[in-house]
Amino acid sequence: MIKILVDTLGGDNSPSANVAGAIKAINNSDDIEVVLVGDSEKIYEQLDKLAGTYDTSRVSVYHAPDEISCNDKPTEAIKQKTDSSLYQALKMLREREDVSALVTTGSTGAVLAGAVLKLGRIRGIKRPALCPILPTMSGSVVAVCDSGANVECDSLNLHQFAMMASLYMQKSRGIPRPRVALLNVGVEEEKGDRLRKETYELLKNDTRINFVGNMESRDLLSGDYDVVICDGFAGNVLLKSTEGACLSLMKMLKSRLTSSLKSKMGALLVKKDLMGLKDFMDYNNYGGAILLGCQKTIVKAHGSSKEDSIFHSIMLAASVERNSLREHIAHSLATQSE
Amino acid sequence: MIKILVDTLGGDNSPSANVAGAIKAINNSDDIEVVLVGDSEKIYEQLDKLAGTYDTSRVSVYHAPDEISCNDKPTEAIKQKTDSSLYQALKMLREREDVSALVTTGSTGAVLAGAVLKLGRIRGIKRPALCPILPTMSGSVVAVCDSGANVECDSLNLHQFAMMASLYMQKSRGIPRPRVALLNVGVEEEKGDRLRKETYELLKNDTRINFVGNMESRDLLSGDYDVVICDGFAGNVLLKSTEGACLSLMKMLKSRLTSSLKSKMGALLVKKDLMGLKDFMDYNNYGGAILLGCQKTIVKAHGSSKEDSIFHSIMLAASVERNSLREHIAHSLATQSE
Repeated sequence: MIKILVDTLGGDNSPSANVAGAIKAINNSDDIEVVLVGDSEKIYEQLDKLAGTYDTSRVSVYHAPDEISCNDKPTEAIKQKTDSSLYQALKMLREREDVSALVTTGSTGAVLAGAVLKLGRIRGIKRPALCPILPTMSGSVVAVCDSGANVECDSLNLHQFAMMASLYMQKSRGIPRPRVALLNVGVEEEKGDRLRKETYELLKNDTRINFVGNMESRDLLSGDYDVVICDGFAGNVLLKSTEGACLSLMKMLKSRLTSSLKSKMGALLVKKDLMGLKDFMDYNNYGGAILLGCQKTIVKAHGSSKEDSIFHSIMLAASVERNSLREHIAHSLATQSE
Repeated sequence: MIKILVDTLGGDNSPSANVAGAIKAINNSDDIEVVLVGDSEKIYEQLDKLAGTYDTSRVSVYHAPDEISCNDKPTEAIKQKTDSSLYQALKMLREREDVSALVTTGSTGAVLAGAVLKLGRIRGIKRPALCPILPTMSGSVVAVCDSGANVECDSLNLHQFAMMASLYMQKSRGIPRPRVALLNVGVEEEKGDRLRKETYELLKNDTRINFVGNMESRDLLSGDYDVVICDGFAGNVLLKSTEGACLSLMKMLKSRLTSSLKSKMGALLVKKDLMGLKDFMDYNNYGGAILLGCQKTIVKAHGSSKEDSIFHSIMLAASVERNSLREHIAHSLATQSE
């Protein structure tokens, strides 16, 4: 049985989406148990609505009613808000051997601070890295690591990110030799700043990694890569500008398609196709971002996650647990230093 | 009279687009003269096609038939290919007082290397910066500085980029107090790496600059900013991922709209609106990227520029010359150090 903590506070749709997503997950997989962490009264209220639809023996509730919000200073909050769901979840994750993973919609800063301060890293990993996945044009997905946990990185950090994210795509997606690229300003080997040049050398010479060279940001969604490696500053810029451009374009499209009667008629006919496009970009259809390199599995779901996003995030956590991702990362580190 | 050199080699549509764009520019403005630099035989061939449509007294031809291509190593090429159009254009720009500006579709690397090695910087400017403009959702434009000339920067570089790009938007677009933002991973003052924190302090305390704080990359096209400041690595990621996402989405939209008869009928009705979207994203409707901080004005047009892109780039060069941008930058530097 894989026991997964589900933080039910800190999201825009908490606790209802978090509870509903957790129930959907246990109904979908026989080997998952969930512990719902948060305000127990509110959790039971949600569970009551779902009574009779799920196996109660695989659901428990842990009372920790305080919430860490985006307005709290992450490091202070994770030290001081001892009654918060995130604090208590991380404590359980550290102390209880039977608990494998945490899925949370809480503040990213607090999750990162808590993961390092409360939970701890895999021995040998310098910095945990946040690794979301995105859909591509070819129907595959691409992982971006690091997407913003570490705004300042050295080449050793990026090298470890590549090893971890490559194993992650192997274990969670079954890709035997994930194609790993380095985000850079051009595809040629000599491109980029010192950090990129040093990292290129390290990746090129590491036989554990299927390094396919530099990638320009315009090719992120091409489907030609399984993993893209970058520092957290560039990763944040990459993801948010991709998201921003897609949203801006859709907004503009919408305003154009309602600008005349003729357009409106045409829009009715293509509505289904456009909704499909919207679905393609909706992160609720994918799991959250995994935090690679910690002692236990943590998946950070989007703050505005709905039921499906929580469900996919729990399934993701279960999948990497089934395939022993953490053990593989630890083993890979040991092999390298031999 | 503003005398502008037009490099007619190095673009995908050279020399025809370059020559046609130059003729369009002199036909549009009485105070512009152009010198067409490249293979004179081929230039005259193009000019013959346009005979009778323009004032020949404002067009001259300078023979320099060699081309620096994207496959040449920039620094070597700009030193060794002495018969190349770019080498000769930069030489003229440096030596001839009557020549104000250069518009080129040549290799960005060679243009940057040549600008520093052959032409020289404005006294006090540490690094020239490439500054393209993009359309926004609100109908305004936004300048991104630096977009890739300097992959490694310190806070003094970014501070100078902000001063130069702010003056550029004032002088070329008539915006009295351009809103200048710093590209960062969050809007709060304390966000980002050391470079961002140091730069934030410098910008905040500079009364010449209307600094409005940090900007996240997703807001680039919002229309809330006139200038976005970043190092060249982040700038490259920002622009190419915005471009890549827009192109990917349009491609996907196209494939969806031709997937069924119903979609195809709808698509016919909305075709005009979709073409408008395509126009919005077409850089040919905007000028090229100005290289700020050099002794003379250089505008780098896109390698695949058509006639209109060359035309807009020449108009841009003429506009900053009319409004004495270089003198204003030099004056601003002098004021600051007083």
